[in-house]
Amino acid sequence: MVKINENYGQLQGSYLFSTIAKKVSEYTDAHPEKKIIRLGIGDVTRPLTGSVISSLHKAVDEMADEATFRGYAPDLGYDFLRHAICENDYRARGCRIDEDEIFVSDGAKPDSGNIQEIFANDNKIAVCDPVYPVYVDSNVMSGRCGQYDKETGRYRNVLYMDCTPENGFVPSIPKESADIIYLCFPNNPTGATVKKDELQKWVDHANENGSVIIYDAAYEAYIKDADIPHSIYECSGARECAIELHSFSKNAGFTGLRLGYAVVPKDIVRSGVSLRDLWARRHATKYNGAPYIVQRAGEAVYSAEGKKEIQGLIDYYMDNAAYIREGLKKAGYTVFGGENSPYIWLATPDNMTSWEFFDHLLHSANVVGTPGVGFGSCGEGFFRLTAFGSHENTREAVDRICSM
Amino acid sequence: MVKINENYGQLQGSYLFSTIAKKVSEYTDAHPEKKIIRLGIGDVTRPLTGSVISSLHKAVDEMADEATFRGYAPDLGYDFLRHAICENDYRARGCRIDEDEIFVSDGAKPDSGNIQEIFANDNKIAVCDPVYPVYVDSNVMSGRCGQYDKETGRYRNVLYMDCTPENGFVPSIPKESADIIYLCFPNNPTGATVKKDELQKWVDHANENGSVIIYDAAYEAYIKDADIPHSIYECSGARECAIELHSFSKNAGFTGLRLGYAVVPKDIVRSGVSLRDLWARRHATKYNGAPYIVQRAGEAVYSAEGKKEIQGLIDYYMDNAAYIREGLKKAGYTVFGGENSPYIWLATPDNMTSWEFFDHLLHSANVVGTPGVGFGSCGEGFFRLTAFGSHENTREAVDRICSM
Repeated sequence: MVKINENYGQLQGSYLFSTIAKKVSEYTDAHPEKKIIRLGIGDVTRPLTGSVISSLHKAVDEMADEATFRGYAPDLGYDFLRHAICENDYRARGCRIDEDEIFVSDGAKPDSGNIQEIFANDNKIAVCDPVYPVYVDSNVMSGRCGQYDKETGRYRNVLYMDCTPENGFVPSIPKESADIIYLCFPNNPTGATVKKDELQKWVDHANENGSVIIYDAAYEAYIKDADIPHSIYECSGARECAIELHSFSKNAGFTGLRLGYAVVPKDIVRSGVSLRDLWARRHATKYNGAPYIVQRAGEAVYSAEGKKEIQGLIDYYMDNAAYIREGLKKAGYTVFGGENSPYIWLATPDNMTSWEFFDHLLHSANVVGTPGVGFGSCGEGFFRLTAFGSHENTREAVDRICSM
Repeated sequence: MVKINENYGQLQGSYLFSTIAKKVSEYTDAHPEKKIIRLGIGDVTRPLTGSVISSLHKAVDEMADEATFRGYAPDLGYDFLRHAICENDYRARGCRIDEDEIFVSDGAKPDSGNIQEIFANDNKIAVCDPVYPVYVDSNVMSGRCGQYDKETGRYRNVLYMDCTPENGFVPSIPKESADIIYLCFPNNPTGATVKKDELQKWVDHANENGSVIIYDAAYEAYIKDADIPHSIYECSGARECAIELHSFSKNAGFTGLRLGYAVVPKDIVRSGVSLRDLWARRHATKYNGAPYIVQRAGEAVYSAEGKKEIQGLIDYYMDNAAYIREGLKKAGYTVFGGENSPYIWLATPDNMTSWEFFDHLLHSANVVGTPGVGFGSCGEGFFRLTAFGSHENTREAVDRICSM
């Protein structure tokens, strides 16, 4: 008799964004005449840029011709893409990363869910609270989180690092040590960022304790301030303790195209084994590469023209972020994030819970956001809006919220 | 101090196809003048067909326009694709499969590696020997296979089902019962097929024991004979015990485009939980969907024109299969498969081991095949050739082998 993975029974409710989708669809079914504006799930709305579209068409044509057709991709991803990543995201920033430490994937979400597989199940993880749910849920599925405690809304074997207005949503280094530390800056959901000297302390802490940091850099393209690091490898010693995850979703709008990469340096060695080799084995065995045409699209992002276009996309969304931030402030909301990040994190008014404010916003303004508590108990009383809408919708949404 | 997943230490050597790639690259570096013909890894060589190319271009154009741009895909895959799959691969064959039981993915390899995650780690798996390595390796990584025994070349906690010339490479139902049974017909690597009444016995066995069958149907498009089932759901009771995996790689040449799907019927219920819901949760949490443009390409495969073109591809490769089969037979080889399958499985001559024959073929004929022993100890003394080359290369390879 087959036995199911009982750890799934510890998962709470369904995946946050699926729940939101259901609530919205119930509302629109009941009110088909209402125009809903979605600033909830972090999905982009701008079309792909000219260079990306051209490279896709060109690559599709290659797939139509026997002489240029491409079948299975190389295990780590195509050289042309790993080279472009290495040059632009690392060497240009003075970080030493080798091309065979870069693993092209179909996005930072799968990577952030799968990376825990190369670690033993009795490691203790530390996460920020609030946190992107995939980090915790993927560890729950592997049995690493222990029992869920309904009173606290937390798993008993997870080390939660509170992120609050008091600490600027950047946690202090915990006194209790964890084996695997998940960090994400610019942060999803709070939009908080970390300065290089602060991040250096995390790297030093990890090296002192033999911990590994999973550093989610999916939003680094939104950083404007010079003292905020784009990569954890800007810190010394990070090659010995940090895995970094990247996405093409938020800089280049690839949410529907699916492309990302993980960096696993050869210098992270534990029990005599290089984590880079473990991840290479996992990658080769359980994954089969991103589509050739999508890898070519990724390459285009790093072309001179591509870079200009991507900057245009980021400026577009950051215009929205500023509009949301300033508009809500004027209306009396307490607002965080939105400066080096596409996420605006606001305190719900009138002591409303996050879900109460979600329902209120959906019903009164027909605007969809994300309840902060969906990201953890410290997110209760907060709410996330994203800058990924169109200018028109974003302005209309903010105006509606302000006149509620 | 972080602990690594020690199960990885039980994995044997590196992944079969990576090893082959290394051997071939060493040979070509030393002999750059030699023309290597690759009939090893099961990668296709024909370009994508006209309908698929058109649909890709069209979908790329949609991604360039704000009004038709698509971001994150629905969790299970786009309705248009799941509908086409359901109609053509199931309803047309009289199988009852619902559209919400179909999970679009980036291929049968990731699905076959990931599917074990929804089961407890103390289940016992049964696999054919020889077997596609991913089934075993993904279970080794989860700690389900026990110690590796160098003498037997087998993991101690895996139930191996011998596939030999005596049983036509279709194993008998084992007396010892297993919890998870992996079956693949038409088989990779042996090219063996199973008739419907034989497959029905496996379904009955699984239902009697509460086992689950993972049925890999990646090669079903190559079936010509009417008494060979294309889907396990042609057998009665399969909705209660079988998960089926499909690929667009081998019928439509999507090895470089990446598309597949898994079917997990709602009727497989264990410990009161539907496996369909577990897989949905896994899918939503750790995966983010196949690219929109690739899902549109998949839809095109089911159009009237698309079906004709796909049949053309299959006929092309099956011409190769016949040429390899007949050529090698005439040259005195003992040959299996290649009739309802793109794989030809041959007995190595002169008591050579599989790897000896691999080296012999590489050095004497400059032809790359796959050593049978790479698929399990019962594969020792056998060798796999694939029909996925061009006509010209396949003919030349066979002629070279015959004149060795």
